[in-house]
Amino acid sequence: MAVRVDLNLSLDGVAAPADPTPENPMGADWGLITAAYVGTRTFRTRVLGDSEGRGTTGIDDRYAAAYFEGVGAEVMGAAMFGLHSFPDDPDWRGWWGEEPPFHCPVLVLTHTPRERVEFANGTSFEFLDATAQQALARAEELAGGQDVRVGGGVGVVREFLTAGLVDRLHVALAPVVLGRGGRLWDDVRLLTPEHTVRSEVSESGTVHVTFER
Amino acid sequence: MAVRVDLNLSLDGVAAPADPTPENPMGADWGLITAAYVGTRTFRTRVLGDSEGRGTTGIDDRYAAAYFEGVGAEVMGAAMFGLHSFPDDPDWRGWWGEEPPFHCPVLVLTHTPRERVEFANGTSFEFLDATAQQALARAEELAGGQDVRVGGGVGVVREFLTAGLVDRLHVALAPVVLGRGGRLWDDVRLLTPEHTVRSEVSESGTVHVTFER
Repeated sequence: MAVRVDLNLSLDGVAAPADPTPENPMGADWGLITAAYVGTRTFRTRVLGDSEGRGTTGIDDRYAAAYFEGVGAEVMGAAMFGLHSFPDDPDWRGWWGEEPPFHCPVLVLTHTPRERVEFANGTSFEFLDATAQQALARAEELAGGQDVRVGGGVGVVREFLTAGLVDRLHVALAPVVLGRGGRLWDDVRLLTPEHTVRSEVSESGTVHVTFER
Repeated sequence: MAVRVDLNLSLDGVAAPADPTPENPMGADWGLITAAYVGTRTFRTRVLGDSEGRGTTGIDDRYAAAYFEGVGAEVMGAAMFGLHSFPDDPDWRGWWGEEPPFHCPVLVLTHTPRERVEFANGTSFEFLDATAQQALARAEELAGGQDVRVGGGVGVVREFLTAGLVDRLHVALAPVVLGRGGRLWDDVRLLTPEHTVRSEVSESGTVHVTFER
């Protein structure tokens, strides 16, 4: 059982682009940091439901495929579920429609828990007001011996990283410098040999860096 | 003629480690971001004067060698010359003793210019109170058709980058996250296809990223 994080970042560490708008809820720069991942065959098949096998099949796709392997439970912040946008709607079932791409129990951290939500594809959302340590204990119960992924947003990931709870951090650094937005790295300190680090550059120019212990 | 920058950074973009002390004037983390560069045969030969050919000879050394090629003049900030540490000593000739490793004219940006200093090895220091654009115009005169390097510190480099004056930026990202210190990237924005970007990972795990236009 390992605690894992996978994130798409700009080279300057931006995970949450600035200036989200109704038209660009993830921020205008979102496409710049996710282009390589969204272009993979794995993303197109697993998330977009493309059954024709389109998309890239190189190094980016190898990481995309690994992303979906061996995760027994996911932890995410309230904003990533959409609670900050729809705080007063008790029937809100998340951003993903009736096919959320998790296929496992998801723990949503929120100060205002609500009823558990369940989907036919194996995804469920459970809401918890808890510290990172408490959330991890519950997520491990839900994961049934598989890995726990901390999915986001960036504030939740940073909380788990600074608490020393993450065993494997994979970041895909897009070859752009954004200069603004929510950065992953602020106050995070990861040194070798505490972690081993390996890096490789993909065909898209994305730099995949993996910290592991 | 191109304007070039080469910097050693941590993966989170720190160029100037935090907490410099008299014992560690570059900050306690300095060694973590420069280890691969300092370990190259080029650095040992060119900067330390090691005549025995020791040091690494792989990808890091290829970049180290390129660092010294084709530079006709260098621009640096007052702190990098040492003026902030020795502001009142008109005889101060810089950090580097009588063999400064530049071998070309160096333009030092300062609000309190002083007399030009010259060394037998071809290095000279000229002091100028000027904007980035004005400094570049003077550096180009001094460079005699070769490249101008903006050497540092991080604030001066950022000023040239945000003014759009840099043609080639090479950063060597050490595989550590420091979480504190002076970051290069704040407010800097570099996007493809305005710049082409290429990245490669060296034997030391350093990620060399080059933005060029």
